[in-house]
Amino acid sequence: MEHPDDTETNNETETKPDADTDETTYHSQLGIGKSAFEGLEPHFEHRNYEGLEYRHVPDYRRGVERGTVLIDGKVVRGFPKVPRTLVLKTGIPTQFDRNERIAVEEKLNGYNVRIAQLGGEQLAFTRSGMVCPFTTRLLRRLVDLADLFEAHPQAMVCGEMIGPENPYTAHEYPGVDSIAFRAFDWRDRESGDPLPVQERRERYEAFGVPQTPLFEIVDVDNAAASVQEIIRELDAENREGVILKSLDGNTLLKYTTSASTNSDLAYAFSLPFDYGQAFMFRRLLREGFQTVEWDEDDEDARERAHEVGESILCSMREAIQTVEDGDTLGERHTVRASDETIDVLFEHLRGQGLNIDIEDDYHEDGDRVVTFCKRTPSSNDTIRNYLDGHIVSE
Amino acid sequence: MEHPDDTETNNETETKPDADTDETTYHSQLGIGKSAFEGLEPHFEHRNYEGLEYRHVPDYRRGVERGTVLIDGKVVRGFPKVPRTLVLKTGIPTQFDRNERIAVEEKLNGYNVRIAQLGGEQLAFTRSGMVCPFTTRLLRRLVDLADLFEAHPQAMVCGEMIGPENPYTAHEYPGVDSIAFRAFDWRDRESGDPLPVQERRERYEAFGVPQTPLFEIVDVDNAAASVQEIIRELDAENREGVILKSLDGNTLLKYTTSASTNSDLAYAFSLPFDYGQAFMFRRLLREGFQTVEWDEDDEDARERAHEVGESILCSMREAIQTVEDGDTLGERHTVRASDETIDVLFEHLRGQGLNIDIEDDYHEDGDRVVTFCKRTPSSNDTIRNYLDGHIVSE
Repeated sequence: MEHPDDTETNNETETKPDADTDETTYHSQLGIGKSAFEGLEPHFEHRNYEGLEYRHVPDYRRGVERGTVLIDGKVVRGFPKVPRTLVLKTGIPTQFDRNERIAVEEKLNGYNVRIAQLGGEQLAFTRSGMVCPFTTRLLRRLVDLADLFEAHPQAMVCGEMIGPENPYTAHEYPGVDSIAFRAFDWRDRESGDPLPVQERRERYEAFGVPQTPLFEIVDVDNAAASVQEIIRELDAENREGVILKSLDGNTLLKYTTSASTNSDLAYAFSLPFDYGQAFMFRRLLREGFQTVEWDEDDEDARERAHEVGESILCSMREAIQTVEDGDTLGERHTVRASDETIDVLFEHLRGQGLNIDIEDDYHEDGDRVVTFCKRTPSSNDTIRNYLDGHIVSE
Repeated sequence: MEHPDDTETNNETETKPDADTDETTYHSQLGIGKSAFEGLEPHFEHRNYEGLEYRHVPDYRRGVERGTVLIDGKVVRGFPKVPRTLVLKTGIPTQFDRNERIAVEEKLNGYNVRIAQLGGEQLAFTRSGMVCPFTTRLLRRLVDLADLFEAHPQAMVCGEMIGPENPYTAHEYPGVDSIAFRAFDWRDRESGDPLPVQERRERYEAFGVPQTPLFEIVDVDNAAASVQEIIRELDAENREGVILKSLDGNTLLKYTTSASTNSDLAYAFSLPFDYGQAFMFRRLLREGFQTVEWDEDDEDARERAHEVGESILCSMREAIQTVEDGDTLGERHTVRASDETIDVLFEHLRGQGLNIDIEDDYHEDGDRVVTFCKRTPSSNDTIRNYLDGHIVSE
């Protein structure tokens, strides 16, 4: 799912003038003109992480990646949007040069973080550029990045937080009991330039940082057939998909499994008024193009159709029944961490205006384990209204 | 389907000042103040039907029904939007008074027309208030309204044009080989006030005008259970649904079958970029609430889910394959009428900016029978783009 930041609101935002003294150097670090930078300024959100003032660009803007951060005189570049194709055999040659070789790596289903070292401290940033206090703390027990940042202080470690005990996007992965980090990119913190794929993988290997699987390196001409095979295997294991990368790391393309699309659809229709209709429609399109590209016969296409129908209708039915029974819909997550980390997580989520209900809360092996539910007011209220006989004008 | 007018564009629109001399009386005929009328004026479309200038309100506006027409000093009131419920057992008591009795009539699947007599001529208006030259001509052979309008010159005959040979919404009905008219309402042309249901049915009966079936007249308390039974029978016959009416004709409520919803979904996904995502989403919701209200078990719900999935995916697959094969997507219709009526139909459709391809054209029993295809440029072009490897930024 691509939504950890979708529920962000701006309750923490402060609009007071920025105390930053390095204003004049930001535009050159970002590689844009002074007037372009001034044009961006109204789009920065002002925030504060434990006394450290920073600004970030929470939405897509011209001239700078979403999630770009200005902090303590330094720039943390946003992670670029990864383009997608609906059709492998034509999309790959459209996106990559004719003679290019492509690395095929797994796209893991979790949430995207970037870790940078600033003022001697490693901070984890969400896709939209907020410091995530939970990830920042938890990371220390998941991966030791001290040597890496000592050798490469300008590094921006980009990766996915995966696993079932996850406050944003929970998904089961073999061998991941709670939550884990998997690096998938290494970029310059300021310019955003990536390392070449093989150099990146070697470096992470050397520093003992767990990485996303690399499936293969293929020629453009052979990529579609070979990616299709990989996608079939990932689909059977209920995994999300792949990212294709030019070996220099600059060109990206993603493609996902039907299992992932159906899981997104089921999730969206379990909260039908909290997800956009465009979110749903785009996923239905993916299924349409995949069944055609894979040249499925009527029987296979019908089987795929039935899965899509169940993802939509069965989850919507369950949501309506939940509200009918007087229960509350929401996004349910379990997290496991130290008391302090759990506390800052809830402070962070509530600071974003989210309504959090704690459903279960206990200690195990020195950690606190909490199951909580982010309320989704639209789906609860709108389903309740329709059940109560709300009349629709359409 | 509720879309005959959705494809209207305004190529016929003229913006020159209105030559009408009855400007000062329109606002009082409409029952609104002069300044409210002036506020509406920018929203009128100016059109011309065979030399007769008229204006109409093509979209929903405050203070006046969509489709209201100002013509030759007279007002033809728009047909009111019919509200819908997603849940019968709560929606019916919400919409109707506690002790009210409700007429349950069939909602037929065709296109809505209003016929009024103006300057001695019967004109048929579409939902959005355009004179439809095709319907205006064809109606003469379908139903004789001369005595009706002689006795009731202020009448607005409201009904559905149904059947397979239909330029807007083709649907099979037993006993309708080509196209037929079914009256479902009788309103005052100027005020829009309806006749009571029983009086309306008796009058149409007396004038020999075919009508929509009346299933029953029920108490509010018994309506939900009894409508559910009717809907099950209509669903099995692939019919659209019902309109519930208070006996005075003033309060309306619609409810439709799963067969109709699936047929709409299949149609929408056969032209996925020409139908709005809201159109699709609303129909998915109907299925969700129907399966819950009908208390279907898992097996029945799964069966319903499979049908929904097939409506979506199988029709989208066919559309993508059509474009892949180099063929053109579009809305295909067959019409049967005199040469002159066919000519004015195509002039009318092309005048709206529609791209019409004639696919079959012959004479039979003195009529011209034409199969044509309204091109749907968005679906053709967008599917082509994706097939060609268009990269999606999402």
